[in-house]
Amino acid sequence: MKKTHAQLADGREIIYFDETDDAVRKLIDERDLPKTSTRSEIRYDAVLDEWVAIASHRQGRTHLPPSDECPLCPSTDDRSTEIPSHSYDVVVFENRFPSFATTVDEVAPDAGSELFPKKPGYGRCEVVCFTSDHDSSFSRLSPERVRTVMEAWVDRTIALSALPHVEQVFCFENRGEEIGVTLAHPHGQIYGYPFVTPRTRQMLESARAHRERTWNNLFADVLAAEQAEGSRVVSRGTHWTAFVPAAARWPMEVHLYPNRQVADLPALTDEERDEFGEIYLDVLHRFDAIYDSPMPYIAGWHQAPVRIDRDLAYLHLEIFSIRRAAGKLKYLAGSESGMGAFINDVLPEQAAALLRDVDLSG
Amino acid sequence: MKKTHAQLADGREIIYFDETDDAVRKLIDERDLPKTSTRSEIRYDAVLDEWVAIASHRQGRTHLPPSDECPLCPSTDDRSTEIPSHSYDVVVFENRFPSFATTVDEVAPDAGSELFPKKPGYGRCEVVCFTSDHDSSFSRLSPERVRTVMEAWVDRTIALSALPHVEQVFCFENRGEEIGVTLAHPHGQIYGYPFVTPRTRQMLESARAHRERTWNNLFADVLAAEQAEGSRVVSRGTHWTAFVPAAARWPMEVHLYPNRQVADLPALTDEERDEFGEIYLDVLHRFDAIYDSPMPYIAGWHQAPVRIDRDLAYLHLEIFSIRRAAGKLKYLAGSESGMGAFINDVLPEQAAALLRDVDLSG
Repeated sequence: MKKTHAQLADGREIIYFDETDDAVRKLIDERDLPKTSTRSEIRYDAVLDEWVAIASHRQGRTHLPPSDECPLCPSTDDRSTEIPSHSYDVVVFENRFPSFATTVDEVAPDAGSELFPKKPGYGRCEVVCFTSDHDSSFSRLSPERVRTVMEAWVDRTIALSALPHVEQVFCFENRGEEIGVTLAHPHGQIYGYPFVTPRTRQMLESARAHRERTWNNLFADVLAAEQAEGSRVVSRGTHWTAFVPAAARWPMEVHLYPNRQVADLPALTDEERDEFGEIYLDVLHRFDAIYDSPMPYIAGWHQAPVRIDRDLAYLHLEIFSIRRAAGKLKYLAGSESGMGAFINDVLPEQAAALLRDVDLSG
Repeated sequence: MKKTHAQLADGREIIYFDETDDAVRKLIDERDLPKTSTRSEIRYDAVLDEWVAIASHRQGRTHLPPSDECPLCPSTDDRSTEIPSHSYDVVVFENRFPSFATTVDEVAPDAGSELFPKKPGYGRCEVVCFTSDHDSSFSRLSPERVRTVMEAWVDRTIALSALPHVEQVFCFENRGEEIGVTLAHPHGQIYGYPFVTPRTRQMLESARAHRERTWNNLFADVLAAEQAEGSRVVSRGTHWTAFVPAAARWPMEVHLYPNRQVADLPALTDEERDEFGEIYLDVLHRFDAIYDSPMPYIAGWHQAPVRIDRDLAYLHLEIFSIRRAAGKLKYLAGSESGMGAFINDVLPEQAAALLRDVDLSG
């Protein structure tokens, strides 16, 4: 694999991850691109004990452009996109409209008040393009390409973890207009958060309490129990297990765990990285085969925070969809959005059976 | 006000709240309505330390019927709806497809395993119709009608709190197809949860820590700070204050607090109940005046749990919308749904100014 660094016209970083060592990449971005200003801050919510990002510069971001104006396609002689080269395998670049950035034009030079603390929204937001083929999708990548994406995730996790303000690195993909994806080109994102996210904090608190009670790792115990019970397991490999969690919140939800406890993506062995693509693609093929149209989904890697509780964490990928039936979506309404109390209309064991038994020949 | 109890054909309870004492209500539901079976259970998620409801019988529920088949309109001589009477002011009845119910056909007679505990989904789900006018909305109710709705909320909070399994009562409204509302008729819902919801638990933990540190009530301190700062206040009355919270998660979000600390709706005085409609309708009028089309929103009452931490709680209403611009919605994607980390594209002070300055003459 060949890695090539360059800069876009406005100074943002771009990194090519190429599968062949003789790939030639165009390093000069000839666009006349004004430097965007990032007015991001984080505010502490004392009632929910969480940080919230306020990124008021993002309202003008690109929204579902026609496919001949896609900013994630390779550039051509006639049209310059975010990627100056005429082709690429996997490419990562800094988001032009980031929620967090290494340089922030402070809107709030003050630190807020005692009850309403705020800080600049330092961090990092990157875009990962999985293929130069606009009409493809992650589920149609080759296992080799997924391996290259994995190397990009590993590389960026290491790089973002080294940034001074970043406390957690989150690699994720939003797929489908139904969940608000504004660019159809197959891509994911990487966030370097300036705080440990609320979900991760909660998971680690549970893991801490479980360790104090049992001396065991909570996630390892959950994985072993799912493997032993079996009724919710969707796919198993030598190194990975995919299952619908017992208390699934979403009508379609799969968690993909490595069989060995590791803190984050860089800790995976070559063998684990190799097998990941096979298992994950199998899960995605099952997702897409259930209904007539591709499944909208969110897939996100839960990694250990950069600095704390790394011994408690257990790397895993969570994939879930809001589709609850053909043509029907689950919306987060009063109970979920207002009270955090999820109501799932689908029995997790039935969701697992549906995924196991789906016809993949189509 | 006159309150009339009756039963629907399948045994569900229906309660009329009438503004005149001479209202005549038809108490017999002549439909041949089969008793529905409720297969609801709650499962404990050990990783997030939360209960999740699995209500797999709800998939067949009514989905956006044409307006001449609306089940929430009054019955006519030709058509029987959920409400047997030919008119009503405010009416409450048990949901035909409830997430929680007082009687549950157990799918899981076992209590689950050590890591995956589960229990029957006992509780209660009710529907509140605000007006018999199908084409109206909460924002177009008269202050008098809002007062009647308030009496219904108070009555149901007391009644549901007395049920053996109910730990928290949540009165809320989902408004707008954009957030998945399946029935257009103006209505809200009331949930009696068999657990204290995750959001409330978090709020009360924060309040407990704040009290230990300061001897003060957290919510009272937040309200006083918002009133003193003023930049996010939208509307103020003698008894109520509406403000955009400093760390708002949603592009349009308003919290409406009584100026006096009370645990729940039944604790409000007559004066407070009277003024509520005035202030809340003002907020809703502002919501609807910002864009060309009515604002989709979720509005939910945060009340103290039935049995615990009642001294820490502070009744308030939270109203928020996913609309972030004309024709644009905020979707919960990877950061919010995956990590619980909210990114808000709108500065809370700007949202408050927008709401304060909007032209209400339209």
